[in-house]
Amino acid sequence: MPEIQEAPVGSLTSMRLPSKGYAAMAPSEKLVPWNFTRRLPRPHDVLVEIKYCGICHTDIHFIRNDFGMSTYPLVPGHEMVGIVKEIGDKVSKFKVGDTVGIGCLVDSCRECENCKQDLEQYCVNGPSFTYISPEKHGDGIIPGGYSNQIVCDEDFVLRVANHLPLERVAPLLCAGITTYSPLRRSNVGKGQKVGVVGLGGLGHMGVKLAAAMGAEVTVLSTSASKAADAAGLGAHKFILTNDEEQVKSVQLYFDFILNTLAADHDYNFYLSMLKSRGTMACVGVPHEPAHIPAANLIWNGKSVAGSLIGGIAETQEMLDFCAAHNITADIELINIKDIEKAFERIEKKDVKFRFVIDIATIE
Amino acid sequence: MPEIQEAPVGSLTSMRLPSKGYAAMAPSEKLVPWNFTRRLPRPHDVLVEIKYCGICHTDIHFIRNDFGMSTYPLVPGHEMVGIVKEIGDKVSKFKVGDTVGIGCLVDSCRECENCKQDLEQYCVNGPSFTYISPEKHGDGIIPGGYSNQIVCDEDFVLRVANHLPLERVAPLLCAGITTYSPLRRSNVGKGQKVGVVGLGGLGHMGVKLAAAMGAEVTVLSTSASKAADAAGLGAHKFILTNDEEQVKSVQLYFDFILNTLAADHDYNFYLSMLKSRGTMACVGVPHEPAHIPAANLIWNGKSVAGSLIGGIAETQEMLDFCAAHNITADIELINIKDIEKAFERIEKKDVKFRFVIDIATIE
Repeated sequence: MPEIQEAPVGSLTSMRLPSKGYAAMAPSEKLVPWNFTRRLPRPHDVLVEIKYCGICHTDIHFIRNDFGMSTYPLVPGHEMVGIVKEIGDKVSKFKVGDTVGIGCLVDSCRECENCKQDLEQYCVNGPSFTYISPEKHGDGIIPGGYSNQIVCDEDFVLRVANHLPLERVAPLLCAGITTYSPLRRSNVGKGQKVGVVGLGGLGHMGVKLAAAMGAEVTVLSTSASKAADAAGLGAHKFILTNDEEQVKSVQLYFDFILNTLAADHDYNFYLSMLKSRGTMACVGVPHEPAHIPAANLIWNGKSVAGSLIGGIAETQEMLDFCAAHNITADIELINIKDIEKAFERIEKKDVKFRFVIDIATIE
Repeated sequence: MPEIQEAPVGSLTSMRLPSKGYAAMAPSEKLVPWNFTRRLPRPHDVLVEIKYCGICHTDIHFIRNDFGMSTYPLVPGHEMVGIVKEIGDKVSKFKVGDTVGIGCLVDSCRECENCKQDLEQYCVNGPSFTYISPEKHGDGIIPGGYSNQIVCDEDFVLRVANHLPLERVAPLLCAGITTYSPLRRSNVGKGQKVGVVGLGGLGHMGVKLAAAMGAEVTVLSTSASKAADAAGLGAHKFILTNDEEQVKSVQLYFDFILNTLAADHDYNFYLSMLKSRGTMACVGVPHEPAHIPAANLIWNGKSVAGSLIGGIAETQEMLDFCAAHNITADIELINIKDIEKAFERIEKKDVKFRFVIDIATIE
């Protein structure tokens, strides 16, 4: 876990941009409207008017301080899309009016081995995660996307195609890249068999992306009612994981399994479905550690990998891939006044497949 | 674990080759001299006079039936080198007098997806492991290398360079390929940092191979007395793993860790030493499963991989690599009459680094 640094001081100016959003004022408190300020755009900054922001389960964890690293007031949101309103003198990548996105990363040291390899999410000096960790160049923690506007260095702003419904693009900035990156890293493509475990915000993107990459996609679920959803998202097969015969039919079957489960589960159950040299990539964080006998990895040369979102260049690649393949998230658009109801439904897994806030509803 | 099939019958002929070796007649019994027969060479077979055979810890596990799959009498040994004495009519790869090796694999189905990709060790129909699982084409379980000769299909026989001391080549057939394969699979080479955990038969080969591949090699050990050994084998660094400061100095340090430990241990201790996107390859099978919180893999995109020996083509590649780099195992040559003493010393880890049986001592 990247070390969280103290917010640096110094470059804050007295002139700041009045902004409005929704914030948790203390751990586990309900979100309330909150007026705050953002920095004025610096030479390399872009000011973005936020149009839509997806709701990630992580937002709820941070509101509750589940990871012990939240600071309050906390404005959540790291799946933003919007329009460039203003640019700093030295901005070269964007112009006013551009459609853009901002995700989980708003800064990084840019000098370490990982940053130099476009792996800013693993910045050795600690990446600046939106609304979580201090911006590296002097503006403390940057409030997230449950707000009307954001100021961000152009290097952490993504181009978004404007032929897609913008509200459905928002979740790509986290759910999209979190699933795209491990699929790409394992060179998923034509002729390969991919299993997707868990059909939530992440899983549903995994299905769409793996199918677009040319793989045969199988959704693995304990709930027969998910079969229709899976097919609708483009999955080719569906395996009911409490049906012994169906499970037997996929032993040593998959080249790659995308495991999005955040609930405790037996990793070995899915490992047995990997063929030799197959990889299971995990993007969910259950409470219990994985208990894996070494023999389950050794006998068929299998791997278990972890993956955290993706770097900025790869996020752009993912957005371009989605634009080329007309891939967006399946969403339910909400008024921000209904945010607590949305949180409750997320906890009950009652969402297909992502809530997105219409930021115009912030008064 | 590949399913063990019943020994097929049919092609056994009444004409067989009288052979002699050492066998366990029942689980955990001491090895005793045993006369038995091997098949006559078939058209694609090679008859090899065994000169040396390494002692792998796995041999002891199978003598004891630790995996519940041993059959008796059991002639152990899967690290053989010797000289071709006779060849079948259709043998094209070898001629009488050639120096050859035979390792853990003596057959496979040759038709499955894995066999076709030179991954015979993961044969979907179950590879034929030397002295463990039935040969696929009608000769039951093939007794291992603690014996004077062996008959094997030429496709599972390896060429061995004859400029190296043959007794030191024997351990390459298991310890060599077991460590070479995961190093290669992770493209270990110049500019990379490799950690080797456990400095036994496997670990000492891992050090030599990784160093020859151009990596910076660090041995990780709880025992300061291993530092000199590590340096002698070509390791560039040594980390005493019960020294907090030393451990701190290798956090997020290694591109690749070769974990050869078969004793229970905390995998996370070593995972913390991997840099982003690093891989820890495990080739040892501790009693306890690995307990790994998903976050330990996710935060820096790390992987845990398993690896089992290597396919035949890769084993040949390893032998050629070792021949080109003058790499052999560090061994202690023994008279087969001292086999039980050797087993005792292996259990006490009192061997640098592999015992090899001088097969000429079989009377």
